[in-house]
Amino acid sequence: MQEANRDQQLRLLWIELGNNPERLQRAEFDCLNEALTHTSSGLNPHHEQLEFLGDAVLRLAASEFIATAYPQMPVGERSSLRAQLVSDRWLAQLGEAIAIAQWWRIGPKASGDPSAAATIRAELSEALIGAVYRIAGLQTVQAWLTPHWQTSAEAVLADPYRGNSKSALQEWSQGQGLGLPRYSCSEVSQSHGDPKRFQASVTLPPDLSAAGWGGSRREAEQQAAEALMAQLKASSTDRA
Amino acid sequence: MQEANRDQQLRLLWIELGNNPERLQRAEFDCLNEALTHTSSGLNPHHEQLEFLGDAVLRLAASEFIATAYPQMPVGERSSLRAQLVSDRWLAQLGEAIAIAQWWRIGPKASGDPSAAATIRAELSEALIGAVYRIAGLQTVQAWLTPHWQTSAEAVLADPYRGNSKSALQEWSQGQGLGLPRYSCSEVSQSHGDPKRFQASVTLPPDLSAAGWGGSRREAEQQAAEALMAQLKASSTDRA
Repeated sequence: MQEANRDQQLRLLWIELGNNPERLQRAEFDCLNEALTHTSSGLNPHHEQLEFLGDAVLRLAASEFIATAYPQMPVGERSSLRAQLVSDRWLAQLGEAIAIAQWWRIGPKASGDPSAAATIRAELSEALIGAVYRIAGLQTVQAWLTPHWQTSAEAVLADPYRGNSKSALQEWSQGQGLGLPRYSCSEVSQSHGDPKRFQASVTLPPDLSAAGWGGSRREAEQQAAEALMAQLKASSTDRA
Repeated sequence: MQEANRDQQLRLLWIELGNNPERLQRAEFDCLNEALTHTSSGLNPHHEQLEFLGDAVLRLAASEFIATAYPQMPVGERSSLRAQLVSDRWLAQLGEAIAIAQWWRIGPKASGDPSAAATIRAELSEALIGAVYRIAGLQTVQAWLTPHWQTSAEAVLADPYRGNSKSALQEWSQGQGLGLPRYSCSEVSQSHGDPKRFQASVTLPPDLSAAGWGGSRREAEQQAAEALMAQLKASSTDRA
């Protein structure tokens, strides 16, 4: 692809994100291109440094969003809401919403692996957040992400467990007199950013168990709890 | 204490942090006072919301510091350096460096408990970072924290294990042909922010073991590894 075509593409993306293209000079085009060039492409510079920055930008922007949108919310709830609004799952959804695959450059191996697609969407969305911050500052990131967060936050707050399956499972098991679920977790991959880096299993006497995976222990345990909750729902439907 | 005296105190703090006191109006005094009023004081509003904000501000400011100070550093190293520059231990040191106890309001129970002091220093330093950001923005936080980070980063980078005792232990045990250290970790307190929320133990065949505690699993495991490394050092000194 010719450089001029790539710049034209990136200008379109910039406009789609709601920004003024007059701001874009050579350095800004390069920054956007870097964010959207995945390591798997073998090209340099690639997205990793902007992803690292984007992670921190996202966290601060989400904190500010919550403070503005829910000024009365207690800190414990802010913390669990923020965890959802900065999660890899949320980032992958953002990537889908902005059709990030239109603009990215990824390697042939990665593009042939559909299970890798969500991870790459999340990684490059985070890198793009880093790039938008570099180019236009925190306010612009905030303006871009706020409508996406509004939708997600409403969905999270409508769920009585706030997406927290561990709490839901604990409440159910105690209600049934089964005691507390027991979790064990191990690191099955050393690769940072691997969405299956940790494997967790959850057991409940006498014979219930499920497994989950995640990029963090917390996520793996949540996934295990969610899997067990799904089993319980399925078996109660069978009985009904 | 009279309100005018408290304002006078907070003005001094603001100047000591290197800022222009002309910026301080009623809202800014209230924000500083909120950051330095610990929940244990029973007063309202207390530090928690600003601590929540400060956590995200700190992470972004540290990411920017690293990008500026170490532009060539690979992302993996940036990530482990950042973890040190935003740790509770680092925050407690910052609190000590700025003598935060001069300005805080904490409860009588908390002030009688010396082991709680480091935790409170860390919490209120983080809240103060949130307050400085609210009042004067990210640049001001950056200017304040950069000299502290320079000192800490130099110390971290001078340590071959970058403060990572788990890596040090693993390297040692593999060198001795003992295989990999095994960790187990459990959540012993449900209280978020409790510096001993997690307990980890590490074992190495045939008979080595140590325990550690921390506010996160990662920290508890690091402390356990550090404790085992200290044992090994002590016993090799005994033998010498």
